[in-house]
Amino acid sequence: MDQPRIVDLAGGVDPGGDLARRIDFLLEIDQLKTVMRRSRLVDGSRYENTAEHSWHLAMAALVLGPYAGPEVDVVRAVEILLVHDIVEIDAGDTYVYDDTGDKAEREERAARRLFNLLPADQAGHIDELWREYEARSSPTARFAYAIDRLQPLLLNAGSGGMSWQHHGIRHSQATAVNGAIIDGSATLWELASELLAACADEGCLIDDRPAPDGASANGEGPG
Amino acid sequence: MDQPRIVDLAGGVDPGGDLARRIDFLLEIDQLKTVMRRSRLVDGSRYENTAEHSWHLAMAALVLGPYAGPEVDVVRAVEILLVHDIVEIDAGDTYVYDDTGDKAEREERAARRLFNLLPADQAGHIDELWREYEARSSPTARFAYAIDRLQPLLLNAGSGGMSWQHHGIRHSQATAVNGAIIDGSATLWELASELLAACADEGCLIDDRPAPDGASANGEGPG
Repeated sequence: MDQPRIVDLAGGVDPGGDLARRIDFLLEIDQLKTVMRRSRLVDGSRYENTAEHSWHLAMAALVLGPYAGPEVDVVRAVEILLVHDIVEIDAGDTYVYDDTGDKAEREERAARRLFNLLPADQAGHIDELWREYEARSSPTARFAYAIDRLQPLLLNAGSGGMSWQHHGIRHSQATAVNGAIIDGSATLWELASELLAACADEGCLIDDRPAPDGASANGEGPG
Repeated sequence: MDQPRIVDLAGGVDPGGDLARRIDFLLEIDQLKTVMRRSRLVDGSRYENTAEHSWHLAMAALVLGPYAGPEVDVVRAVEILLVHDIVEIDAGDTYVYDDTGDKAEREERAARRLFNLLPADQAGHIDELWREYEARSSPTARFAYAIDRLQPLLLNAGSGGMSWQHHGIRHSQATAVNGAIIDGSATLWELASELLAACADEGCLIDDRPAPDGASANGEGPG
């Protein structure tokens, strides 16, 4: 049965209401399950998709809530994390180490099309959550962002940095990309730093850390 | 880097705290992404896994909240839906049309092991959410259950009933299994009924509906 037929049936049981639009949206966002990310599962078996990633982030926000500041609304962070990647259905996943291209423009178009499948009040609410996240304009959005950075780090560490190695990522790059975790939680940033250092130690990340004594990281310097 | 090493690093940055247990739990539940369900994605391309299913349910609870009764706490329903299937990591997915076996016992064991990875207060909270859902002991749990039944129905309808056909499911079975949707939302049950009827019309479900005039559904009766 095609999507318009299902939406039509929903309209029939709620004449004058919004059920048809809500069902259309729910069918449409099923596609997030087919958007593939660059991180592998902890067991390394395959790449993660954005829908299951969003579930993992929502769980992480609930579980790590005690490490957020008192001004963070954890329930709102969960809502933000559930919706923050829906734009990828149209815009695709952009690798966090890829800072080229027209990501912002593509995502803006996607937000307009996808959120507006919903009735206006709910479309407005989701749009607000998404923009708050993108702008990191609140302590809650900054905590959500910290969670969205820490989770791939856990996956990468767990899977032995398979994805980092594949893309040739250096410790300094990973540190720069994940540095904003500190704006969401000092403790989670401390954990991230330890993980990155351990990954560099183990060779999952290319080790470009300056040696403490000014020698190169590989010990090939003058000593 | 293996899971104990990551957990150990988390312990190191939060001595005397709970971060290690929380990180251990988050790494463990990554496995929910590898638990496969019996429903196919709307596009029919593959089976759905339980982690992405849980994300879709959380979104559906948010989006269909207006069709819940006034006594339903939609935020709590979202929380319930995020955690309600975590036991499947150990217990596996049990097909809703399979009422044999030791599902309850397996899930009870799984809940004890998995939830208790967390600190006691959070373990208790998740355990409470899960039991409320299993017992359907509140309007919120009954709404969450309705969402958990409606979503596979949308996927099955969208994918032309591929999974129903594969398992030889009859209209009467699907009606019985999904009947409890009415306890969560009268409108959503009306939609479910319409979808099931349309699926029987189209042959996605085996049509065993009694014909209105007492003839068999295939019109082969005497009337």
